[in-house]
Amino acid sequence: MDTVLAGGVGAARFLQGLVQVVDPASVTVVSNVADDVEMFGLHVSPDTDIVIYSLAGVVNPETGWGLEGDTFDVVDALRRFGYGRWFNLGDRDLATAVHRTRLLREGRPMHEIVAELTAAFGVASTILPVTNERVATHVLTSDGELDFQDYMVRLATEPNVTGVRFAGAGEAAPAPGVLHAIREADRLIVAPSNPFVSIGPILAVPGVREAVVESSARRIGISPIVGGQAIKGPAAKMLANLGHEVSAVGVAEIYRDLVDVMVIDDEDRALGPRIEALGLTCAVTNTMMTTPERKAALAQFLTTL
Amino acid sequence: MDTVLAGGVGAARFLQGLVQVVDPASVTVVSNVADDVEMFGLHVSPDTDIVIYSLAGVVNPETGWGLEGDTFDVVDALRRFGYGRWFNLGDRDLATAVHRTRLLREGRPMHEIVAELTAAFGVASTILPVTNERVATHVLTSDGELDFQDYMVRLATEPNVTGVRFAGAGEAAPAPGVLHAIREADRLIVAPSNPFVSIGPILAVPGVREAVVESSARRIGISPIVGGQAIKGPAAKMLANLGHEVSAVGVAEIYRDLVDVMVIDDEDRALGPRIEALGLTCAVTNTMMTTPERKAALAQFLTTL
Repeated sequence: MDTVLAGGVGAARFLQGLVQVVDPASVTVVSNVADDVEMFGLHVSPDTDIVIYSLAGVVNPETGWGLEGDTFDVVDALRRFGYGRWFNLGDRDLATAVHRTRLLREGRPMHEIVAELTAAFGVASTILPVTNERVATHVLTSDGELDFQDYMVRLATEPNVTGVRFAGAGEAAPAPGVLHAIREADRLIVAPSNPFVSIGPILAVPGVREAVVESSARRIGISPIVGGQAIKGPAAKMLANLGHEVSAVGVAEIYRDLVDVMVIDDEDRALGPRIEALGLTCAVTNTMMTTPERKAALAQFLTTL
Repeated sequence: MDTVLAGGVGAARFLQGLVQVVDPASVTVVSNVADDVEMFGLHVSPDTDIVIYSLAGVVNPETGWGLEGDTFDVVDALRRFGYGRWFNLGDRDLATAVHRTRLLREGRPMHEIVAELTAAFGVASTILPVTNERVATHVLTSDGELDFQDYMVRLATEPNVTGVRFAGAGEAAPAPGVLHAIREADRLIVAPSNPFVSIGPILAVPGVREAVVESSARRIGISPIVGGQAIKGPAAKMLANLGHEVSAVGVAEIYRDLVDVMVIDDEDRALGPRIEALGLTCAVTNTMMTTPERKAALAQFLTTL
């Protein structure tokens, strides 16, 4: 039993490797929902859908999000009604949002909806939204407090970040199955996602951080920072803005109570002793998931830790 | 000031002619909303949108509904979630439904929403949903009571009709402007639409039939039946099923309290005396709106009555 705390693109790439080397049905994903957004009146769950599409083998391989070969006729047509065109939701991707929105309006809890979507895409792994409640990442910046997608997509992570707030997290409860999946896993993996806006809002749901700390699983984190840079997204910039070292060491410091092993890239081998000095085991391998083979090799490596 | 009671395709074709011969801004359309349907959790208003698209010059000219050149990626993708593929909503047409649904959820009344959509499509005429309340046509058939789109689209008008019921009509009120537009029009035109399921539910909203009866306008009906057949849709079959004569006379009998003049096609010229015997003026012209010129000629003819 593997349980993976997952954000979007980086986590999804890792999961594509994991299901090549373990039984996909033995994998449970705890998915970030705090970048969910109401767009055109539709409920969009970017991180969860990236994971579903990736595990289903239908994700757009160039962007890492959305569906391969998708078209954009609906968002183009919506411009007529005054909507901005910055949120690039494909037509088939929008169909997922239409169905999810319908089920939400009917009162179905998100974990049931995600289970239904996962099954519809033929994915054998279990994907659990960390909570059924609405939690929303707000990014505090030099331009004021921004909704996450505003910061991430519309403003392309341009503003400097002074903090992150998870609106609603205090009142949220873990979705059914989440704490069990964390506590009872054989391996608990913190995917190579943004520590602040992907993993952070998962841990902010009351009970989740404690479950991770107390889990009897072998707990393994994978650094999303390689050679002082993020593979994708604003993780490096956020580390710097928020006063952390921009390196796998900076990430390990954030995760020191949450993982037993920190996996870093070959390129960062020299950082090993500093990570071990934090009381963590440091494991070094190629973490660049540029091909299916490399994704599988990284996952295979984790099974040896 | 022309006010037109309008269903879908036939009415829209007539309106395309009318706005060629009078100032489009002087035309008010009272639109049927009783074939509105919740599809995929989206609120679709087929008759109203057909009128908007037709007046905007963007309607699919082959079908008479939907948008010219539209694609169907979203409804195709929705099949994955178990939806039937019988309701053929194009991607750009769906964008209209997405926006309408969002505004409805925000509590905006339908007449404001339709005004916004009409403006977004650059249409100068006023389009008024007959009511802001939910009224739904149910078709009583040999197969039981059916939702209108079930009867019309899914079952392709196959079942025999024993009656029509407008759920919610008793509690509905005319939308702001509807009664005024009917009472104060110079011409009040009953478009060549289905008397039972297009014009019927307009008249079923409390106060509307009375306003038509009492209107000081020149009241003109156009027969949707030519040579014993409907130009489009199930009007002829419904007339037969419900015990009416399948002809312009059958239609005139239904409208006898509502119009002063009945316009029939050249082909039905021989029916003139029987319509006049009902106490109506009968006007004969070419009502086949097969070209823009013929649409304009029909409208021009009406301005002489």
